[in-house]
Amino acid sequence: MHYTESTIKNLPRVQRLNLINSITGIKPGNLIGTKSNAGVSNLAIISSVVHLGSNPPYIGFILRPSMVDRRDTYENILENCFYTINHIPSNFVEQAHYTSAKFDKETSEFEQCKFTEEYLSDFPAPFVKESGLKIGLKHLESIPISINNTMMIVGKVLYIDVDSKALSPEGYLDLDLLDSAGIGGLNTYYKLKKIKQFPYARVAELPKFSK
Amino acid sequence: MHYTESTIKNLPRVQRLNLINSITGIKPGNLIGTKSNAGVSNLAIISSVVHLGSNPPYIGFILRPSMVDRRDTYENILENCFYTINHIPSNFVEQAHYTSAKFDKETSEFEQCKFTEEYLSDFPAPFVKESGLKIGLKHLESIPISINNTMMIVGKVLYIDVDSKALSPEGYLDLDLLDSAGIGGLNTYYKLKKIKQFPYARVAELPKFSK
Repeated sequence: MHYTESTIKNLPRVQRLNLINSITGIKPGNLIGTKSNAGVSNLAIISSVVHLGSNPPYIGFILRPSMVDRRDTYENILENCFYTINHIPSNFVEQAHYTSAKFDKETSEFEQCKFTEEYLSDFPAPFVKESGLKIGLKHLESIPISINNTMMIVGKVLYIDVDSKALSPEGYLDLDLLDSAGIGGLNTYYKLKKIKQFPYARVAELPKFSK
Repeated sequence: MHYTESTIKNLPRVQRLNLINSITGIKPGNLIGTKSNAGVSNLAIISSVVHLGSNPPYIGFILRPSMVDRRDTYENILENCFYTINHIPSNFVEQAHYTSAKFDKETSEFEQCKFTEEYLSDFPAPFVKESGLKIGLKHLESIPISINNTMMIVGKVLYIDVDSKALSPEGYLDLDLLDSAGIGGLNTYYKLKKIKQFPYARVAELPKFSK
């Protein structure tokens, strides 16, 4: 089955949305926790978190103009400067999915979707207590992606809280043990099963592959 | 277990690399196929592919300055303008991992790692025959992320080839049926098990959640 530039363009809108949102493969399931200066917390599901660098530790996510909920998130990030990124445990995917409903600005998705706000080490944004991996970040930069009016929000990692059962002495994280969920497209959720781990790839140590 | 800004900074380098590369959660496992004007094909594993928009269909990935192999990829993208993104099937993760070894410039990772170059509909870059989902893109823009000397490479989707058994009439893709792999950190691979699918989230249709 294949699609060309023109068949993609002429797909019904929802079918195109579903297809194009799915083709990049599995996406990380995260909840972004923020708080407005007026004291209202916000929680937004996001599937576009991406690693940018380890030293210093930078993480980005894509903000799309059409997403009203994420606009609350962005306003809070601009007001407060601090935000959190929290893995979605696989048994919380339904609650996480519904954080994307358009609640009014005075309503906290923590309350509506029954997640527990957690404050750790005086960090000024709410973590998600139910999450097995929690990251506290400071906003550094918003990089415009002008061709389609989106932005990449870049933050520096200031705090990491992780369930120690999932962490190896070398710093490897087992996402299967953490039970972190993956997202496909706009509405499909996956569990992760660890299958393999390989050493750093060197030409001199190339295994003998055959077709 | 938790880390602060200073404990992260003072971690041994490899442990910090492993940890920070892991904390964003599951990452999509893809192979980028390119070809130089001199006719040498290149294949590079990449875990930073991100959806940017559906109409027009744009996809980005992060290029890090330290990755020599991906520099070949980038030079080819600049020369040729066209490139492919191909899902890694879970039974090909070892071969895919070793495309990151530093082969010399005249060597094709297709050949070394035993993937099959496939040319579809006159698209001027090589697809990976073994992949269940193949995307053909045209390079549009390279957006500098100046704070750590990385770039986001933005392309427009011109072609999609997908195993039809994984595609629903609504355009949903089943990544479990496609057997696409996810990546954790720098070297850990996961299979995906589909667990749930939910409708578009509306406040009026919020399920009754309880803690």
